[in-house]
Amino acid sequence: MLLASLLATAALMQDTVRFTPTIQQPTFAVREPVLTVKPNTVLISRTHFGPYYTPEDGAFPGEVGPVFVEGATTNDMLVVEIIKVRPNYKYAAAKLYPDFGGLAADARVRMLNDPNPGRRYLWQLDTVAMTGTTTLPNSRMKQVTVDLRPMLGRVAVAPRGGEAFTGLWPGNYGGNMDAPEVKEGTTVYLPIFHDGAYFYFGDGHARQGQGEVAGTGLETSMDVVIRLDVIKGKPIDWPRLEDKDYIMVAGSARPLIDAFRLAHIELIEWLEQDYGFDKWDAYALLGQVAESSVANIVDPNYTVVAKFPKRFLPR
Amino acid sequence: MLLASLLATAALMQDTVRFTPTIQQPTFAVREPVLTVKPNTVLISRTHFGPYYTPEDGAFPGEVGPVFVEGATTNDMLVVEIIKVRPNYKYAAAKLYPDFGGLAADARVRMLNDPNPGRRYLWQLDTVAMTGTTTLPNSRMKQVTVDLRPMLGRVAVAPRGGEAFTGLWPGNYGGNMDAPEVKEGTTVYLPIFHDGAYFYFGDGHARQGQGEVAGTGLETSMDVVIRLDVIKGKPIDWPRLEDKDYIMVAGSARPLIDAFRLAHIELIEWLEQDYGFDKWDAYALLGQVAESSVANIVDPNYTVVAKFPKRFLPR
Amino acid sequence: MLLASLLATAALMQDTVRFTPTIQQPTFAVREPVLTVKPNTVLISRTHFGPYYTPEDGAFPGEVGPVFVEGATTNDMLVVEIIKVRPNYKYAAAKLYPDFGGLAADARVRMLNDPNPGRRYLWQLDTVAMTGTTTLPNSRMKQVTVDLRPMLGRVAVAPRGGEAFTGLWPGNYGGNMDAPEVKEGTTVYLPIFHDGAYFYFGDGHARQGQGEVAGTGLETSMDVVIRLDVIKGKPIDWPRLEDKDYIMVAGSARPLIDAFRLAHIELIEWLEQDYGFDKWDAYALLGQVAESSVANIVDPNYTVVAKFPKRFLPR
Amino acid sequence: MLLASLLATAALMQDTVRFTPTIQQPTFAVREPVLTVKPNTVLISRTHFGPYYTPEDGAFPGEVGPVFVEGATTNDMLVVEIIKVRPNYKYAAAKLYPDFGGLAADARVRMLNDPNPGRRYLWQLDTVAMTGTTTLPNSRMKQVTVDLRPMLGRVAVAPRGGEAFTGLWPGNYGGNMDAPEVKEGTTVYLPIFHDGAYFYFGDGHARQGQGEVAGTGLETSMDVVIRLDVIKGKPIDWPRLEDKDYIMVAGSARPLIDAFRLAHIELIEWLEQDYGFDKWDAYALLGQVAESSVANIVDPNYTVVAKFPKRFLPR
Repeated sequence: MLLASLLATAALMQDTVRFTPTIQQPTFAVREPVLTVKPNTVLISRTHFGPYYTPEDGAFPGEVGPVFVEGATTNDMLVVEIIKVRPNYKYAAAKLYPDFGGLAADARVRMLNDPNPGRRYLWQLDTVAMTGTTTLPNSRMKQVTVDLRPMLGRVAVAPRGGEAFTGLWPGNYGGNMDAPEVKEGTTVYLPIFHDGAYFYFGDGHARQGQGEVAGTGLETSMDVVIRLDVIKGKPIDWPRLEDKDYIMVAGSARPLIDAFRLAHIELIEWLEQDYGFDKWDAYALLGQVAESSVANIVDPNYTVVAKFPKRFLPR
Repeated sequence: MLLASLLATAALMQDTVRFTPTIQQPTFAVREPVLTVKPNTVLISRTHFGPYYTPEDGAFPGEVGPVFVEGATTNDMLVVEIIKVRPNYKYAAAKLYPDFGGLAADARVRMLNDPNPGRRYLWQLDTVAMTGTTTLPNSRMKQVTVDLRPMLGRVAVAPRGGEAFTGLWPGNYGGNMDAPEVKEGTTVYLPIFHDGAYFYFGDGHARQGQGEVAGTGLETSMDVVIRLDVIKGKPIDWPRLEDKDYIMVAGSARPLIDAFRLAHIELIEWLEQDYGFDKWDAYALLGQVAESSVANIVDPNYTVVAKFPKRFLPR
Repeated sequence: MLLASLLATAALMQDTVRFTPTIQQPTFAVREPVLTVKPNTVLISRTHFGPYYTPEDGAFPGEVGPVFVEGATTNDMLVVEIIKVRPNYKYAAAKLYPDFGGLAADARVRMLNDPNPGRRYLWQLDTVAMTGTTTLPNSRMKQVTVDLRPMLGRVAVAPRGGEAFTGLWPGNYGGNMDAPEVKEGTTVYLPIFHDGAYFYFGDGHARQGQGEVAGTGLETSMDVVIRLDVIKGKPIDWPRLEDKDYIMVAGSARPLIDAFRLAHIELIEWLEQDYGFDKWDAYALLGQVAESSVANIVDPNYTVVAKFPKRFLPR
Repeated sequence: MLLASLLATAALMQDTVRFTPTIQQPTFAVREPVLTVKPNTVLISRTHFGPYYTPEDGAFPGEVGPVFVEGATTNDMLVVEIIKVRPNYKYAAAKLYPDFGGLAADARVRMLNDPNPGRRYLWQLDTVAMTGTTTLPNSRMKQVTVDLRPMLGRVAVAPRGGEAFTGLWPGNYGGNMDAPEVKEGTTVYLPIFHDGAYFYFGDGHARQGQGEVAGTGLETSMDVVIRLDVIKGKPIDWPRLEDKDYIMVAGSARPLIDAFRLAHIELIEWLEQDYGFDKWDAYALLGQVAESSVANIVDPNYTVVAKFPKRFLPR
């Protein structure tokens, strides 16, 4: 319903801005905007390209932004409608790192065990058929082909106060949530901690499994079309998402159970505020209809997406 | 493939046994069997009925079992094919407890906060239309109707050695996994810790959300048809599941991340053993295609189901 | 104060029983008692001896018990005064296991990393000088000698209901807490879940570091003198400890923070019930004077001991 | 041994600098230094004073710094010898917050339970007798007096790269570790992530319990004397501490077990690098002689201090 009215508004008085990023940002923070837009602007852009994606390998690119959104205040929420996320390059890269990953000891989850070997898998993308193929050098099945499901690992505003987090971090400002739900057709609502919001995006994944368990998705370069807008007078605490089937909240924290609880409790608050549910009724109903996905278990905070099916919302 | 060949075998030389449970079991443990069956037996039975399910409320019923499976040894795995799980009663009950639940302090996750209020929601089941309806007394939307998705919260063998766990516990022996995936069309493979396996089942849910976050599903009485069989010479460490789309592992532990890792690592071992994947190739591929669901965050161990889509398995 | 009055009572009308254990118990559970005693009995006994402690290596011995304590009911608490715990053998053994340990992936905290190597350290005990010495084969310092601090890893009652846990488990029934605080001069108060309490003890450590991080203490055979008594009409939820300086609570759970919270919150309840503290005053004061130790991070539940210095108790 | 040689060096060629702070810093980050010193400088200073400490209450003051240490590079470690930490004000304040604290649901560990009440305890300090006294309004014991044990909650360098964390965060750069071990007589060794180190300090506690479980220590203003020095060519990964009895490592992370493991594994690496221990010998020995304390369970990362008694080090 919210989504529907937003889309209606979007048809009117909408700006379109084309933007080619040049500066790669190392942290989510308040800094000099690379672009200023009005509310209800369609931004036609792309993620940064980096050698990380190429057969030659190399550094991972930073984020695009910050985009200053005029009129966005800390009493509002930022609307990020994902209109298009499509790979624009013929390769994607995925890595196993000895010191980063979800099912192995790493630099944050230290163990005395020897570290795992590092590996790199280069995937060939067919951006027409929307498939990706890689070799599995040591397996009986020598090659695997998957259908692509492009998404943005990172959409963010500048964090509260003077804090600055590298692009690896997700949090209440969004950031590196690595949620496959951030894809075409989804609208992300972000809290605003500074006037102007300071919007960032990046980290395209041609596909990613739930949990991003091995540490990366199919990392590649993306064409991106996003509509940025502001909903006035409705501040929120954590990123909310909406598609045609679900309202969702992305909670990010360690340990995993805290991310899980954050996401679900914020979802209950949304049900109370916007849909007239009693808190305990909402809790009880979630017990029967909640869905959820573990978005990542590798980043400095883990991310869980809690979902409420829209068919159970009041008309 | 495994499933297909099992179903083929099932067509031949299959026993059918009708069993009406009378003894309700308080723990998963080795004890006097209530029934002995041959491998490849279709068991037509039902869960225990208890006053917990009625408008009057009352005690929760225990499990059905143990069923002794002839010829099942600790070097084998037990096959539990879920042929039918259907509610056979007109009510289901769901509760909020002050000392049990996933989004609130409880007896295991202690906090100094005041406990939450307890509540009971009686749901009316239409077992023809397969819907359930309850009132939401304090919400704008006064009533909600959901489609039913019947499942068994508990399928188990007797735990290793002399251990005995109440029906609330899930573990490597199965138990109270509260996984919505344990439904019609799914086959569960269980480890065997004692000759004869000592199979138990119970805890029917007419529906349950992922995580069972409020502490219970739509608890009710079920008609159950299960095919029990043995795969010789293939011992496993944790419950495995299979349906037409996925091979899956259910890992149970606290904290949640340990359940998550257990499930995914056992899934990688399955991919290595049965499908010829190299360990690191399997890990890397899971990074792109893994799915997972948090089955419960309320029981003494939490349960996560890790899933690998069968369409990415070698032919 | 409680301790003082108990000791006074002990001087009167006290039974003394000598008991040499023969049956080794595999689980903490309700079973046929090996001995029945009256309240206020001094039990002169020893732990089981097993080949685990010898140069030849071998199986780890089970616990001593259960001792049935006459008149102990579920409305009481069991008093376990540790009068003597002294090694009676010239060796102690400590092991590194590939699948068990606190700073490495193990069977409960699964990781994809290769397992650690196993090792065994045989320690020579001087039970007069109360020192232990072992070789460090690959270190610059080829040998190390430590002062002994004998303790009992396990004191327990039978768990609630029909549950049975192997000797590795600690919980609200005590069990394998592996707390160095369970030593001469300490009194342990245990909950009672069955009339008669069904007391167990075992797992002598000639010394153990906090956290028992590598998986074992200096495991050896012990002479044990324990006074068993009952405090009527004061049921408790978790093991409490007392020595001349502290009142303490041992909380056992995973994850570690839950054990930490359980122990501290139960300590606050003790301060409220017996010493007249307001809940929030007690919480605030703990913020300034609490001490704590992590007893084990290797067992199926971790154990934390929360401590309140007796000098800050009301006179 | 390290400490002894450092102290010997300190007697020679030592600078002394008096510094009265005026700028209060909101985050640990690279910014314009407030002071530049040579290695081996005794800094005579104080923490910021803020209304938080007064009967009137008010904002909490920020940190002092950054101090630029000439010649300190990312290939070195920073030496922070705590010579004096003494309260210089007659009050200390301690608070219970509804949204911050270790034994209750808070903004990071969300629960559906109602929040706890907030409270403020004003403590009167006797800085000669070194005692603090407060009232316990609702308790039988109406007043409590404790001996003071002054410490610095925060010593830090600027975090790696462009990151900036509020004063609440501890991490590998030190920060808000809230470790009672950071007191007179202790030397803290910090990693260096930027040339010049950018040293910060603040957050004096007249006393604090282990875990800082209620959220604050006895927060007050401190006279501080610190010797800053550089050990060349010895980079480290996490803060190390040393006093006359122990070498220690402070690990900060969530969940608590990860902080615990980080601290102990870094301690093993220290034993390998500086004292010639084999990794597995060090692990096994820690199992018998390790001590540890939980410094805080309230900050964005929890902190654990792992300790190795110096009497077990090689001569």
